[in-house]
Formats: sequence, structure tokens, C-alpha cells
Amino acid sequence: MNIKDRITILNNLETKLFKNDFLLTWEKSDDDLKAILEIATILKQMREENISPRVFDTGLAVSIFRDNSTRTRFSYASAANLLGLVIQDMDETKSQIAHGETVRETANMISFLTDFIGIRDDMYLGEGNKYMREVASALDEGFEKNVLPSRPGVVNLQCDMDHPTQSMADLLHLKNEFGSLEALRGKKIVMSWAYSPSYGKPMSVPQGIIALMTRFGMNVELAYPEGYDLIPEIVELAAKNAKESGGSFNVGHDMEDAIKDADIVYPKSWAPYHIMEQRTQLLKNKDAKGLAELEQLALLNNAKFKNWEYTEEKRKLTKNGDALYMHCLPADISGVSCKEGEVEGDVFEKYRIKTYHEAGYKPYIIAAMMFANKFEKPAQVLQSIFEKGLKRVRY
Amino acid sequence: MNIKDRITILNNLETKLFKNDFLLTWEKSDDDLKAILEIATILKQMREENISPRVFDTGLAVSIFRDNSTRTRFSYASAANLLGLVIQDMDETKSQIAHGETVRETANMISFLTDFIGIRDDMYLGEGNKYMREVASALDEGFEKNVLPSRPGVVNLQCDMDHPTQSMADLLHLKNEFGSLEALRGKKIVMSWAYSPSYGKPMSVPQGIIALMTRFGMNVELAYPEGYDLIPEIVELAAKNAKESGGSFNVGHDMEDAIKDADIVYPKSWAPYHIMEQRTQLLKNKDAKGLAELEQLALLNNAKFKNWEYTEEKRKLTKNGDALYMHCLPADISGVSCKEGEVEGDVFEKYRIKTYHEAGYKPYIIAAMMFANKFEKPAQVLQSIFEKGLKRVRY
Amino acid sequence: MNIKDRITILNNLETKLFKNDFLLTWEKSDDDLKAILEIATILKQMREENISPRVFDTGLAVSIFRDNSTRTRFSYASAANLLGLVIQDMDETKSQIAHGETVRETANMISFLTDFIGIRDDMYLGEGNKYMREVASALDEGFEKNVLPSRPGVVNLQCDMDHPTQSMADLLHLKNEFGSLEALRGKKIVMSWAYSPSYGKPMSVPQGIIALMTRFGMNVELAYPEGYDLIPEIVELAAKNAKESGGSFNVGHDMEDAIKDADIVYPKSWAPYHIMEQRTQLLKNKDAKGLAELEQLALLNNAKFKNWEYTEEKRKLTKNGDALYMHCLPADISGVSCKEGEVEGDVFEKYRIKTYHEAGYKPYIIAAMMFANKFEKPAQVLQSIFEKGLKRVRY
Repeated sequence: MNIKDRITILNNLETKLFKNDFLLTWEKSDDDLKAILEIATILKQMREENISPRVFDTGLAVSIFRDNSTRTRFSYASAANLLGLVIQDMDETKSQIAHGETVRETANMISFLTDFIGIRDDMYLGEGNKYMREVASALDEGFEKNVLPSRPGVVNLQCDMDHPTQSMADLLHLKNEFGSLEALRGKKIVMSWAYSPSYGKPMSVPQGIIALMTRFGMNVELAYPEGYDLIPEIVELAAKNAKESGGSFNVGHDMEDAIKDADIVYPKSWAPYHIMEQRTQLLKNKDAKGLAELEQLALLNNAKFKNWEYTEEKRKLTKNGDALYMHCLPADISGVSCKEGEVEGDVFEKYRIKTYHEAGYKPYIIAAMMFANKFEKPAQVLQSIFEKGLKRVRY
Repeated sequence: MNIKDRITILNNLETKLFKNDFLLTWEKSDDDLKAILEIATILKQMREENISPRVFDTGLAVSIFRDNSTRTRFSYASAANLLGLVIQDMDETKSQIAHGETVRETANMISFLTDFIGIRDDMYLGEGNKYMREVASALDEGFEKNVLPSRPGVVNLQCDMDHPTQSMADLLHLKNEFGSLEALRGKKIVMSWAYSPSYGKPMSVPQGIIALMTRFGMNVELAYPEGYDLIPEIVELAAKNAKESGGSFNVGHDMEDAIKDADIVYPKSWAPYHIMEQRTQLLKNKDAKGLAELEQLALLNNAKFKNWEYTEEKRKLTKNGDALYMHCLPADISGVSCKEGEVEGDVFEKYRIKTYHEAGYKPYIIAAMMFANKFEKPAQVLQSIFEKGLKRVRY
Repeated sequence: MNIKDRITILNNLETKLFKNDFLLTWEKSDDDLKAILEIATILKQMREENISPRVFDTGLAVSIFRDNSTRTRFSYASAANLLGLVIQDMDETKSQIAHGETVRETANMISFLTDFIGIRDDMYLGEGNKYMREVASALDEGFEKNVLPSRPGVVNLQCDMDHPTQSMADLLHLKNEFGSLEALRGKKIVMSWAYSPSYGKPMSVPQGIIALMTRFGMNVELAYPEGYDLIPEIVELAAKNAKESGGSFNVGHDMEDAIKDADIVYPKSWAPYHIMEQRTQLLKNKDAKGLAELEQLALLNNAKFKNWEYTEEKRKLTKNGDALYMHCLPADISGVSCKEGEVEGDVFEKYRIKTYHEAGYKPYIIAAMMFANKFEKPAQVLQSIFEKGLKRVRY
């Protein structure tokens, strides 16, 4: 579909994204989500057609990464750059769990000429999203009291609850793989735990996936070994979403059962909810010994489920033996990046390029979130950009 | 006042800022300082009115931070970005006191396409400002010998003697709080030492304040416990300034006495001159044991003056019990960021937003210093920008 | 020569630089090299005449530095900035020798909106250039499979074999010092090993110099103490180049002999080939003890050749006692940056500013490599830029 037609579609959506932060997909309406997908796609097409959607002459996009990241860091940097903003990293060498006064003050100090603050804070259960809201609230106050000339938007680059830039990129990938959002109705997607030799992977990806995909009439299967629960409220939300959208949501504890006839399989490791709860408590108490013991315990437990690997044999159980494999990357690939992992080398290789496509949507999803936050009528602005047609690579 | 009127005022000032570094406020004329305040205000108003004062299509602003910083780092980055420059950090993992050949060479190597070098070097008494001048002198030679296409300006982002971007932001804050520079005449400002549980805070803020505020007819009180002297030459300079400007300058050692009837109170900790002198010597000798002993000694001594805290009770002694509280942030707030500190929690909270406003001028002060360094007739350039009216956020 | 005439010269060169990476000078034709020199010079003149050669409205230039660097880092940042690209650092805290799957994936993940990837990887013999080719090959696949909207160019910022941005900057320096490339015919240039108190300096500079300068009819002397061999294939290449270009290439082991009547002397330390081979092996085996022993051995061996210092006495042996001294900087300067080193303090001082000029070409050489990679007809694009005449510093 061409850019003009997409702008028309976008123009018919009723959104509340303007001046609102993007912290959780479940705080957004269906039209909001569809608008993000359309804007992301338009920006991607413009980039490919050498049209520059730069809307900022100058401005800063601050990044706060409280956990390591390459993919999301580059995606955020790319999104900012595409729109004309410059990244300014906020390095926190100090304590990881900083709240209260310090957050309130710092949020303002870094925002005098800032348009966006992107935050990754996924290490501590009950903390990451809360921290983002503290920053957001401090920015509200700063703007209200004339400290800040405008209210910078906050973008959740992964928290303890959701990973919206990932799940929305995943949704756009699915939309394009299957042809439309409508085409996803009745498709079976399996979000499955998978074995990993590492410990403590966040739950935000599986949580983000089940909470988002249940909204589009898909049949969502969540599969994991007993004990590897996600945050209960989000699982309940997924069930509710499925009911409302005319899809289904099912939780099981057998990987093979789950993936039978699946259209899409998303095998990915995570740490169980109760382990994450203990871990957060131990971290707060600075109990290094307790943390080491917990890690040993968790790894031992993980090791019981090495058969939760997505293999060629399992793949054969899926729809036509060729379900779309998804992963947020990097995957733990058996015999490649680790001895035993989430997915067999041969299976991964078959879908490797598709996982790159999947990842490739993220910069545009982030840019779309920024765009929709900044402009009340994004369709009109995109129309102006398109008509003006300034080149990204000039001459 | 609107932008046009400010440009007229600016146009009538006789300045020598063009192609001159901004290293110490006391090397600048009153008109120079007034011009910086006007340019900063104009740039701020332009930013608020969505006019982009970008004057550089490309170019680098190098930052050299020899001490940690969040506020000044973001202020410098914001200023550079506002004018169209990109920050390039010069990381010095090597020795802190590098002089001579290395400085001369490095200053040129980082400047081939550079417009400004911002330097923070406040750790060593007698070193920071000296280092800036070594860099400046190397740049002079590089430009003269055709190594550099233009002479990058040097901006002092805090040294051992002065913190001009801070004191000028403070002055702009005072100007706006009291209505004009003229209105500051006869106002009493108290720069008071205050207790902090940390050790070795630079003297550049109090020195910068007493050297600058004495130039505008203010009654400046410097208060500190016996022994917490500042650099004698700068104290003498403050006395001289006061005499010339028709204000007054007084040094005392009783906090309560000092703040009586004060219009403005600036309670802030610093390390005494003689301690800083010893510290620099020990650092040069790499005497880790001596440094640890000195720190213990200094902390013990500080602890004798825990009553040098700005409390609600003390606040009542000020003019109408409501003197403007100032701080360069972050403050050591009793019961908030530390157990016992520079200021009582309740008092700080009353003026918290005002300290944010105070801090908010710094990016524009830095941008103004760059602007005035780069353009011989800043009023004319600002006039052109205003007339052209290019938007910062486009479409 | 003015910009217009240079564009005419450039226009007559037949190049294959478009969409090709710049990894080794010996993979490029003479016209390719001449084109880089012309483009670099035109960009430099434009910068000096305040014409902005910015060709990118937005875009990223990724940098991967697997070894420390200040000069090359700033040169790359300056080049990117001049053309309108923003630097995004790829920090590799992980293993230094990462190959295979990880490289393939990461190369794509950092390139969704990236125009160039500059890589410094000079620590491991047989690894650096290989790594660049792995990245390049992954980018080829990514572009072919529609993962990437365009194929980012790869720029070698120093590998185990060559340091093309340095040697090309050196060539441009020589061209300007002697008036033309033609004027270099018959000139004697001595690439000589020199003593340094440090160990393990890469061989890429001497290798780059002998492989490049032999192509322009120069008489190239390579001098080093017995045992300090370079990679044999590159030495053979230099001999072949000299034969073809009508110059000469000679290897000797006596510094004084070598520099007699030299027009140019490039005294610089490097680690011997066989030491680098052992080092790479020990690093791969993570043999810390072996590495420490090798370093001791190498330093002891170096110390036998402290007389390989470029002194005033040796300088007198050169043509008119005034051969052009060259160095990639920083030099180990006896009595200045070290006790005993590559060059006497007085000699270095005589040519110090010239070494700054030499270094000053590097940003433009890198920008030229980017420019030629991105535009099929660089002369036409430069002509358009020149005619449009947009100012870098506006108003």
C-alpha cells in the first residue's frame, strides 16, 4: 500500500496518543495501536523512498538504560535521529533503585531542552514501570510550574511489566507476514517458555506478547513448566482481552501440546515470577550471598527443563510444519551461542532472516510513538512531509 | 519584554566577547555580562516560541569533564544542540593532571572540525583554570599555524576558581526574580557555608557568587566557620568589586548573624582552602594514605558545624521571613538526601521549584557564551534568526 | 587550486569506489586513491570557505572501536558530522574476538538506519581485517534479503594489516608538502622502526606506508632491527608496487644507512610479526601468564635497540639535513612523553606543527571515503554543493 493511502487510514483513527506517554500497550485503545502501526509503516516507507521525515530542527532524546542493551539502544538512537533529535545518555553509575527526591529533581534537570526520555528499567519486579511513572509525574510538575518549556514524552523501552516497543514491532511483523491485522483472527500463536543456560531474563516480553496478541482475535497459548508463572494480573488481562476480541487464551505446561497446529511459535526463556520477587527483595537488601544462592537454585531448576527447546521435531507439529518462528533476539541457539538453549541451530537458521525483519520494525515503532506523542494530527503532518518531499540523502 | 526590544538593548552594549574565551566572570566587562544575560534570555524566548536559533549546520562541541557531572553535562549538551552542534566527549581515562606536550597536542587533535571546547576541571587547586588556559593557548597556536580552520572557543564549565556558567545562571535568576539588574542594588545576598556529610566540594561556586554579585551594587555577606576560607585573591576581588559598584561586602563567621534581613540566602558546603591545597599536593604525590587521613580529618572538622544548616528557624530571620533560597543543586537536604545536611527538608521544599528555575537558565547561559564568541554582532544575527523565524518543531 | 578546478580533475578519474568498502589501499586503483585525495581536499576547502558539504539530513555512522583511540575517534566523528551523520558507538564489553553468528546478527541489528560502520580492530594478527569482512558480508546479506534499506559502507579505521585512513592522510600531506603526486617520484621515504618503551604497537602503519608509497614512484626504504619483520605478503606487495610504479623498495637493518639522503623520515615503533603471532595465539588461549612473559621478553628485546632513535645527529644525514619528519601521533618523544623513545625532543619540536597538519587531513580522508562510497558521481554532487553554497555557520 502506498503512503497516501496509509495516511488516509491513519486519518480515520481516533487516538489519544497526543501528549500521552507510551508505557503499557494495555493503556492504549485499539485505534491508538493501529495508529502506531500505520505511522511506523509510513515512516519506514519514507525512509526507503529517501524522504526525510525529520520534524525536529534540534532537540534532545534522553536515554536512561538501567540494564544493558544493544538492540533497543540502537533502535531508540535510530528513531531519534530519523526525526532530528540527538541522543543524550543519562548514565547512572549510582544505585539502581533510585526513587523519590532524586528522581523528581533529575527528571527536570535533564529535560530543559528535551523532547523525549526513553527508559529501560527491567531488572526489578515492581520497580521499572513505577520508576517511569515517577519520572513522568516529575515532568508533569516541571511543565506545569514553568520549569520546562514543553512536557517531554516518556517511552517505555522495557520495564518489569511490558516491553511495548518490542511487542508492537512483533505485531507489525505479524501484520506484514499474514497480510493484515484482520488476517490474524483465529491464528494460533504460542508464547512458550524455553530453556536457557542464563538466569533472570525479564518477563516483560512474554507478558507483552500475551497482553497484546489477545486483542486481535488470535488464539494465544501460553506454555511454561509448572512454577514459571508470569505476573498474575497480566495473565488475567490476557484472558479478558481474548474474551473481548473473540480470540482465545489458554495456559498449559506442555510445550509439544501447545505448539500443535500453531501458526506462530515464540519460544523464549524467562525467570519465574516468584524468583523475580525474591531477587528484587535480595537486591534491595544488598544480600549478595542470597543472590548467588538464588541464582544457583534457579539454574538448577532451569536445567530440569532442557527439553523445552524448539527443535526440528517440534516444528513438525506446527501448522504445515512451518509455523512462523519469532524471537526478540538474541536467542540462545543450541550449538551456536550456547551448548543447549532455546532453539535448535537448524530451526533458527530457517527463520533467521525473518527474525531480523521482526527486529527491523522496532526503530520505526519507537519513532511512531514519538511522532504520535508530539503531533495532535499526525496524518496531517505526514501529509505535509510527503508533499514537501525533502530528501534524506541530498543532491 | 519581547524579543525585538531585547535585541535593541543588546545592540547598545559594547562587548569584547567575540573570539574571546569565557573563563572567569571577572575578566569580563559589565556590558559583556549584560550581553550574555540578554542573549541567553532571547535564546530562551525563541526556544519557547518554537523559533530555532540554530546557527550551525554542522560542527562539534567537545566536552572534557575531569569530574563527574550530570547537570552541567546536560546543560552543555543542550546548549550545543540548540545551536546545531554535536557533542563529542573527550574521555580521559589517564592521569588527571596532564599538562605540557600532551595538552598542546591533544587540544589540536580534537579540534580540526570543532567550534567549542567545554571543560570542567575543578578537582585541583591551582590546576583547573591553568589547564583551560593551556588548552586555549594550544588552540591559539594551532589556528595561527593553519592547523585549525578556526579557533574553537573555550568555555569554563567549572574550575578551581570560578563556575561562570553557574554564577551567570544564578544572576539571570536573580534578575528575573527581582525584576531587573537595577532592582538588585541594595539587596542583601548571603553566601553561606553549610554543613554537608561529604568532603572536598569545590570552592568555585561561592567564589563565583561573591565575585559576581558584588558587581551589581548588592550587599554581599560571606559567612563560614573559622578556617573555611576561600582563595584570598578572590575574596579581595569581591571587596574591591563591592566598593566600585556601590554595594558592600562583608565576611563573618556566624550564620544567624549573616542571614538577618537577607533578601537572598545561598547555603552551600565547600572544603576549606588550606584543605584543598593539601589535597592537591597529596594527589600530585599519589599519597593515598595521606588523602584518606585528610578526608577523615576534614569530615571530623565539618561535623563540628552541623548547626550550619539552613532551617525554618533561620529562615524566619530573613527579610519578611522569606528570603529567596538558592542552590546550584544537588543540595544535601536533611532527612531527604542525607541525614543531616545543608538545608532542612521543609525549607528546601518551599523553594524547590525556584531552584529548578535557577538551574534552567544554565543551558541558555552556555549557549549565549558560545553565540557571543562566534558572532561579532550577535544582535544582528539574532535579528536575522527572528525575522527568518524557522521553526524548531516543524510542520 | 580552487574548488572548481579540483572538481574537473575528479570528474576525469575512473573510480570503483561507489558502494564499495574501503578496507585496504591495495584493493583500490590509482584513480580510486587520487579521487579520495581530491574529494578530501575539496571538502577541506569547502569547510574553510564556510560551505557546508552536508549531504545527509539524518543518518547514523556507527563506530566500533576494539582498541583505544582518540585521534581516529575524533576524525571519524568529525567526518560523519561534516556530512550530516550522527555517531552511534557500539560498545563491546564482551570478548574481543567475536565471530560467526554474533557478528552476522549484530551487524544487521545496528544497521537498520545506518549509513556507515567504521571499525578499528588492530589487536589480533589475522583477525582485524577478517572481522571487517565478516561484518561487510553480513551487511551484504542483510541488504539483499531486505533487512536493510541500504547497504552501509564499511570504513577500516585500522586493522592488523592496513591503516588506510592514516596512510591516505599521510599521502595527502606529502602531496601538499611536495606540491603534487608527480613531485613524489624519486623522493626517498624511510619507514623506520624506532625504539619505544611500550610493547605491542600494531604493524598497520608501517605496512600501510610501504604498500601505499611504493605506488607513486617513490624510493621506499624499510628499516628495522633484525627480527622486527612485518607481514611477509605485504612486504612482497610493496616490492611489486615499486617495480610497477618505477620507484624502488629496499629493506635494511641499519637506521643510519637507511636515512642517508632521505627526503622523508617516518620513525615509528612496532611489534615484530612473530611476537604478534604468538600474542594472538596466547590471547585466544586466554593465557595471561604467557602474555606477561611475552611482554617481558619483547620489552627486553626492544631495549637492545634504544639507539634506533631519530636524533638531531641522524637528521643531519638526511637530504639537506632537513628531511620531512612524519608520525601518526602520539610519538614517544625522548625526555618529553617518555625517558627514551622514538625521537629526540628537539627534532620532534622542529616538525611538531607539520605532524599536526599531517593529522589534520584524516577527518577529510574519512569523509571522502564515505562520500565516494555513497555517490556514484561525486564530482557532480560536489558541484551541486558548491553551486548551492549553503553556509556551515549561518547568518
